[in-house]
Amino acid sequence: MSSEWRQTPANVEFWFEFASNYSYLSVMRIEADARRAGVGIAWKPFLLGPIFQSLGFSTSPFVLQKAKGAYMQQDMRRLCRRYGLAPWAMPSVFPRLGVLPLRVVLVGAEQPWVAAFCRKVMELNFVHDHDINQPADIAPLLQELCLPAADILAQAQSEPIKAKLRAQTDEAQAKGVFGAPTLFVGAEMFWGNDRLDDALAFAADATRQSAP
Amino acid sequence: MSSEWRQTPANVEFWFEFASNYSYLSVMRIEADARRAGVGIAWKPFLLGPIFQSLGFSTSPFVLQKAKGAYMQQDMRRLCRRYGLAPWAMPSVFPRLGVLPLRVVLVGAEQPWVAAFCRKVMELNFVHDHDINQPADIAPLLQELCLPAADILAQAQSEPIKAKLRAQTDEAQAKGVFGAPTLFVGAEMFWGNDRLDDALAFAADATRQSAP
Repeated sequence: MSSEWRQTPANVEFWFEFASNYSYLSVMRIEADARRAGVGIAWKPFLLGPIFQSLGFSTSPFVLQKAKGAYMQQDMRRLCRRYGLAPWAMPSVFPRLGVLPLRVVLVGAEQPWVAAFCRKVMELNFVHDHDINQPADIAPLLQELCLPAADILAQAQSEPIKAKLRAQTDEAQAKGVFGAPTLFVGAEMFWGNDRLDDALAFAADATRQSAP
Repeated sequence: MSSEWRQTPANVEFWFEFASNYSYLSVMRIEADARRAGVGIAWKPFLLGPIFQSLGFSTSPFVLQKAKGAYMQQDMRRLCRRYGLAPWAMPSVFPRLGVLPLRVVLVGAEQPWVAAFCRKVMELNFVHDHDINQPADIAPLLQELCLPAADILAQAQSEPIKAKLRAQTDEAQAKGVFGAPTLFVGAEMFWGNDRLDDALAFAADATRQSAP
């Protein structure tokens, strides 16, 4: 591909989940921040559920640990304000299943629309408190981006893409991912929205040092 | 008391544990950062063990969750570099029991030496990889600060102080503390070394708004 956005090599892996509220914060800002830092993003959707299960957690730690869950609400209110996002409100379903949009991201991971699509899914969950796992939920988002929704959803539900999401979840676990979002720059791992700026800065430094 | 350091009202509660590596980072910088922000610190030692046990954790999550523990090492290496601390090395005993120095902090919580004492204990654990729970470990630190070590250690091991540490741990749990460090400015809670700057800024704003 020759479009301008592909000229930046994708040297930051961004592992995320649509159910994850801290992934929401990062998804909303990563495209603009990465462009500013001059680094490219490799979008890496994966499923948190199997990772949590392997740690012995039946669901999100924010549900299992009530004090942590209560704190998270305070923290999210402050961070949404800081980033200029809609006032924080906890979704009525949490964590919300979003396997279908993760598969759509696998279809579009190298397409210029991936970042905008991810923001729309996150807003559907965290701003509009709406389900995100059915074709009827996701098709309108693709249409708003002037994309062939039916084609993309058919691809997203194909066996190869389903297998790819499972494989990518296994890969996350093998890389030591234990939560979301998680960023990698080479072997250097950065956990959480709190480390997004550090990851981008680290990648920008690495890019400068390897420049001819 | 009339010494200058007491003229700043202690409007930030700093809840911490000597076993906690992220508490180490905050202890090393909080006195200077709070002075710069013009806010006062209330030192609130507590025991993490009972809090973790109430969450069903037999020890630190960094021990129980291997991937999280491995990541923590990367993160600590970067943060020690950022704060100009000694290169990070994992203590050979982790989490290291430090009940005695927590009790010493209760003795000295309102004394001008508390911050320097806490830094010395943290360095003993995280820089010198040395035990911190015996009078023979702690006495030299007090002596370096020109304090009456024997008197302070005797007070620290008195029943009222032992009871106070248990009560303060219960209070931490009642306030919703689930990890360390945790800071409070009124009802506003800030979890983790990552939120230290936010807590101080919030307290500074609150101080300005309530100024006559």
